[in-house]
Amino acid sequence: MDVSDLLTSAGINIAICVVLLSLYSILRKQPGNACVYFTRRLVSEPVRGTGAISCFERFVPSTGWIAKAWQATDEEILAVGGVDAVAFMRIVVFSIRVFIIAAVICLFIVLPVNYYGQDMQHKEIHSESLEVFTIGNVKEDSKWLWVHCLALYLISCSACVLLYFEYKNITKMRLAHITGSPPNPSHFTVLVRGVPWSPDNSYSNSVEQFFSTYYPESYLSHQMVYGSCTVDKLMKDAERMYRMLKSIDPRFLDRSLPYCIPGGAAHPFMVLNLRADSVSSSTSMDRLQPSQRRKECPAAFVFFRTRYAALVAAQVLQSSNPMLWVTELAPEPHDVYWSNLSIPYKQVWLRKITTLIASVVFMFLFLLPVTFVQGLTQLEHLDQLSRRVPFLKGILKQEFIHRVVTGYLPSVILMLFLYAVPPTMMLFSAMEGNISRSQRKRSACIKVLYFTIWNVFFVNVLSGSIIRQLTVFSSFKDAPKQLARAVPTQVTFPCVLNCWFNKTSTPPTSWQATFFTTYVLSSGWASLSCEIMQPFPLICNFFRKFILRTKVEPSSCALTFPHHTEIPRLLLFVHIGFTCSIMAPLILPFLLVFFFLAFLVYRNQILNVYVRKYESGGEFWPIVHNSAIFSLLLTQVIALGVFGIKQSPVASGFIIPLILLTLLFNEYCRQRFSPVFKRRPAQILIEMDQQDEQLGRKEEIHNQIRSAYFQNPIISHQVSINSNLPLSRNTSHHQGDEDNLHGLKSLKPFRYSTSSIR
Amino acid sequence: MDVSDLLTSAGINIAICVVLLSLYSILRKQPGNACVYFTRRLVSEPVRGTGAISCFERFVPSTGWIAKAWQATDEEILAVGGVDAVAFMRIVVFSIRVFIIAAVICLFIVLPVNYYGQDMQHKEIHSESLEVFTIGNVKEDSKWLWVHCLALYLISCSACVLLYFEYKNITKMRLAHITGSPPNPSHFTVLVRGVPWSPDNSYSNSVEQFFSTYYPESYLSHQMVYGSCTVDKLMKDAERMYRMLKSIDPRFLDRSLPYCIPGGAAHPFMVLNLRADSVSSSTSMDRLQPSQRRKECPAAFVFFRTRYAALVAAQVLQSSNPMLWVTELAPEPHDVYWSNLSIPYKQVWLRKITTLIASVVFMFLFLLPVTFVQGLTQLEHLDQLSRRVPFLKGILKQEFIHRVVTGYLPSVILMLFLYAVPPTMMLFSAMEGNISRSQRKRSACIKVLYFTIWNVFFVNVLSGSIIRQLTVFSSFKDAPKQLARAVPTQVTFPCVLNCWFNKTSTPPTSWQATFFTTYVLSSGWASLSCEIMQPFPLICNFFRKFILRTKVEPSSCALTFPHHTEIPRLLLFVHIGFTCSIMAPLILPFLLVFFFLAFLVYRNQILNVYVRKYESGGEFWPIVHNSAIFSLLLTQVIALGVFGIKQSPVASGFIIPLILLTLLFNEYCRQRFSPVFKRRPAQILIEMDQQDEQLGRKEEIHNQIRSAYFQNPIISHQVSINSNLPLSRNTSHHQGDEDNLHGLKSLKPFRYSTSSIR
Repeated sequence: MDVSDLLTSAGINIAICVVLLSLYSILRKQPGNACVYFTRRLVSEPVRGTGAISCFERFVPSTGWIAKAWQATDEEILAVGGVDAVAFMRIVVFSIRVFIIAAVICLFIVLPVNYYGQDMQHKEIHSESLEVFTIGNVKEDSKWLWVHCLALYLISCSACVLLYFEYKNITKMRLAHITGSPPNPSHFTVLVRGVPWSPDNSYSNSVEQFFSTYYPESYLSHQMVYGSCTVDKLMKDAERMYRMLKSIDPRFLDRSLPYCIPGGAAHPFMVLNLRADSVSSSTSMDRLQPSQRRKECPAAFVFFRTRYAALVAAQVLQSSNPMLWVTELAPEPHDVYWSNLSIPYKQVWLRKITTLIASVVFMFLFLLPVTFVQGLTQLEHLDQLSRRVPFLKGILKQEFIHRVVTGYLPSVILMLFLYAVPPTMMLFSAMEGNISRSQRKRSACIKVLYFTIWNVFFVNVLSGSIIRQLTVFSSFKDAPKQLARAVPTQVTFPCVLNCWFNKTSTPPTSWQATFFTTYVLSSGWASLSCEIMQPFPLICNFFRKFILRTKVEPSSCALTFPHHTEIPRLLLFVHIGFTCSIMAPLILPFLLVFFFLAFLVYRNQILNVYVRKYESGGEFWPIVHNSAIFSLLLTQVIALGVFGIKQSPVASGFIIPLILLTLLFNEYCRQRFSPVFKRRPAQILIEMDQQDEQLGRKEEIHNQIRSAYFQNPIISHQVSINSNLPLSRNTSHHQGDEDNLHGLKSLKPFRYSTSSIR
Repeated sequence: MDVSDLLTSAGINIAICVVLLSLYSILRKQPGNACVYFTRRLVSEPVRGTGAISCFERFVPSTGWIAKAWQATDEEILAVGGVDAVAFMRIVVFSIRVFIIAAVICLFIVLPVNYYGQDMQHKEIHSESLEVFTIGNVKEDSKWLWVHCLALYLISCSACVLLYFEYKNITKMRLAHITGSPPNPSHFTVLVRGVPWSPDNSYSNSVEQFFSTYYPESYLSHQMVYGSCTVDKLMKDAERMYRMLKSIDPRFLDRSLPYCIPGGAAHPFMVLNLRADSVSSSTSMDRLQPSQRRKECPAAFVFFRTRYAALVAAQVLQSSNPMLWVTELAPEPHDVYWSNLSIPYKQVWLRKITTLIASVVFMFLFLLPVTFVQGLTQLEHLDQLSRRVPFLKGILKQEFIHRVVTGYLPSVILMLFLYAVPPTMMLFSAMEGNISRSQRKRSACIKVLYFTIWNVFFVNVLSGSIIRQLTVFSSFKDAPKQLARAVPTQVTFPCVLNCWFNKTSTPPTSWQATFFTTYVLSSGWASLSCEIMQPFPLICNFFRKFILRTKVEPSSCALTFPHHTEIPRLLLFVHIGFTCSIMAPLILPFLLVFFFLAFLVYRNQILNVYVRKYESGGEFWPIVHNSAIFSLLLTQVIALGVFGIKQSPVASGFIIPLILLTLLFNEYCRQRFSPVFKRRPAQILIEMDQQDEQLGRKEEIHNQIRSAYFQNPIISHQVSINSNLPLSRNTSHHQGDEDNLHGLKSLKPFRYSTSSIR
């Protein structure tokens, strides 16, 4: 691949991006798409004057969204998306900063050294091979290798300094989030699991007895977790039905009812509707007692009088049997993943191991379909196939079909496989027994991260061009041609490793850098366009609107930010950026474009599309930090190997202290910052408690946290107040607490002035 | 090596053991050796009628000590050595039980299968090679391999069941220890480190301010940690001097003073002695304030009103900067390792990493001197040496010298190197910054364990006969001859591994089993004889008594149980036992003899020799458990490999679920038991607090814990009461608290009846 090829590819990808973004800027102006592109705004500000847009303006691309995304301040992002959103944007900002530094160093210092590394007649620049710009072009035993060594030192140092300040700031933000938010029921609540079964006591009585014995002063009350019983299921069915009916335009209702609800006649909907009043009016729980008691789970939310008491109860080992009375801080009410709470605690460790094994197996077995699909691209396999299945012979002989089968089909299959990864990992994380949605997402994020870095980076670098096909597909160019060109540069990294270990002196060639450059160009840029276009919700919306003709509530299709797919994607590019930076600096400008685009796109999405249902307070940052450190270390180890091949033992020797220093830096950060992401500092909580006491808001808060965690709408006190129809409840099945939370939030917003945050 | 060789070797080693044990039974009856063999009794029961022993009885070997050690009940051991001693004895008991089961299974079922594994004419039994008894003798693809598979299942299951019950019982014992002991000052005390420096406050004021602000109800008082200042050093010097003078027989004093204290005239001893009264009478600390304040460390012991409050303060994250106000439960007063308390907390992580790296380097570099020494045994090296250093030529030509140099010298050097390992690891653990002696010992124990298993087992199995020389030396046989015999059976384990990986079918030979059998016979048995003989204290005692002519205080040479050398030794033999059991069952009887002997020897030592200064409550048990599980897993993996070579895929396949089940069992134990070894259960402590409250002993306890942790004798209130001479203080430099502790222990011994221990 030469420079002109690269520029052509870049040109094509830029054109595609521009087209897609223009398309986006048109689509977002269509009022019908508002619930796809402005979901968050519609949910949080339901009545909103969109302003009159002329018909002409509606169909002309504009750059207004870019300006808006650019101008939004960090405070706005914080208000809209919470600490999680800000922390996510910090990944992008960190990447931009570190790669600007790397680009300046590498393009102005390292690149010339690489380019003039051999005594050779340089061709004209546009027909120069890309390999000339990589470290492969530097002579063995060259004295100029210290430039690479120095550049690596500078990049590592600046990355560490930036990482340190990011970690520090996000820690500060997290602490400010704890103190700055209105009284949060999750601060006062402990989730207890593994309540022991006793023949003479219900679980509820056991919980009450235990906590009033051992925490007599701070125990307030508790709320049992219930397994779902028949009444719940019927209510849920009815609710879904009601929503479906409500969303249909009333004019269609009479006509469409028999078709829309095939089981309508036999369904208990009408019966329930009639009896709903009587059910909802029984706010006293006595009448439901027997059926509920039967379904009580050995888990409960226990409310305490102070935040500190809850913290303490969550952290100490309660019982001499560590499988009983297991306490931990409760997640926020909206964050609770109710269905996992009923899992017996004794199963949890088993589930964790099982899903761990399952995801590792999945990670490695993923290669099987991929290699099978890769087999398709080879012609002789196709010949065999057509010999066995004779009727394919005719089809496969056509030039076009042949090209599709060999070039595009594998890529499509691969893409589909890759798209299946995040949902699978999410499923694993749900099966693991995580008790909160944010925890589940974080767990899935780690799994997807390992998966991506392994399957995209290592497998590709170590064994060949699995993901290469994706690039081919994404860049919409002639696949077989590109493949044929790319093959000679394949399998070069194993060369590097082999050379290093065997101390032979074969020079490393372009070191897969070409591949990663095109990967950033195509897959990276395309994924951002895809993210902003939201093709799946767009199609769903279209389908519902014009085929099903149902009216869609914005809240029912509101999504939370998909951290588990976006963080691994960003971190993959950070990883590629670090590992390629000094080896093949040409990748850096393209990477910078990617991150700038990501900055705009994600800001726009946070401001307009994704809703915030819960808040983890940036708890995923340690994952980001560790991943960045890992990438840095890998870069250094690779440099060590390359310097070894280039017979420059001095440069190699200088890398070893750098590796040690990076490890020490990481350990320092782990000691200094990460405990705050696992446990809440007592000092701050005590100060907040004291201030509540002084302001006399304790009673008020206590009354409200008692009702914050309602599992079933049926138990909610406010059912009959909220709506005239008892079934007009919201989607999320713990929506019942929304009102209580709003009540809690209506407490004068008060920033606790804690002296202890430094 | 054939059966008669083995029997000869066993005979020789049995004879040596019998001689050494008889010698011990004579030596212990000499009154002069009482302070070597009855240290604990002398310290705890100073006035003890030894009973009149006739001169004849004194020089006749007897077996009384065996009977006494055998008859001692577990309660006695518990009373004398605490939970740690009982837990240690459980290792031996567990080993005896599991290897009895293994011996029954392997000797009666596996051994015949091995012996009749090949269609061959068996020689007479005594000239049969030992290889015939190993799995190496079984034919490839033999159907009888399922016997080995079944045996492995039975052994693994019984080991897991036994391990489970041991873990359960020791957990129970640990909990009973927490409730059963008299009010323990360490339960009420938290060690806080990383007290922030402030320009207007002393550290002491900061601590007081912090804890009275955030723990107003439960904070009692605190005690700062001081760095050593000049006065302390002078006092310590004087104390040492006084002890030296006191220990010398008064008759010799006048004559020997000028010789014993060469710097006597210039030493400030006399001056201090005169001023001692005035210093000791100043129990008010005001006069020492300025010098002490200068030396205050940012660490303190903080005392709380209840156990639960201390537990809570120790477990929560205090400050938003996790490097400040770091709290943890304080060790027992005698357990405190004072000199490490003054290390700034910020250094601790750095020290931990450094010592980790240092011990790994030490572990691997240990091979260097060993291989160098091994080089000496080769004749051509010696020739070179004598050519270069001509005057050695004559010496080396003599047959005797030559044999010593090639046969014994390397072994001696190796033994010396090996003896240097535990002290080195102890030094590393001290440098690591451990705050208690028990923690330091535990940390050293882990390091020595890794070292032993790596250098004795893996290095030997994987690369050859490094430790083989030790055997040779210990069995007192003709070294070169044995070496020559052993060489052919060398390097067989790599064969196993290679075969396994390359799927070639070279049968494994005796698989180093011969070597390990002789290792158990010689090194194992000899080490026990050595342990009971206590040669080093014996020589020291002799030297002091007859050469220096000083009188030795029993308390000054009292040792605590050397867990860090004895636990790794036992675990190494457990490891060898498991890995060899089904491969070479002949090792099991010798191993059983070793463990029976260990049972008697260690009981005797616990009852008579080692003193108990502090108590960790069996905290080392998780190390033992994990090590046993590791040995089991390695056994299973080796079996997997061996079955693979023997071309028995079914047997191999059956091993895989066994490995998974063992891993799951370990994980279950980790979940179920190990938290109790890291944190104390709140329920129990709260119940103890409540009972103290009911009995009205709170005030009494509070008064006494305030004075439990005294660092310097000079600050002790009771200096002038304890003794007429203010310098007649005891060895341990925190002895000042002894009296307070005795005071505390004089509280009616009361077993807290907690309902929560199940």
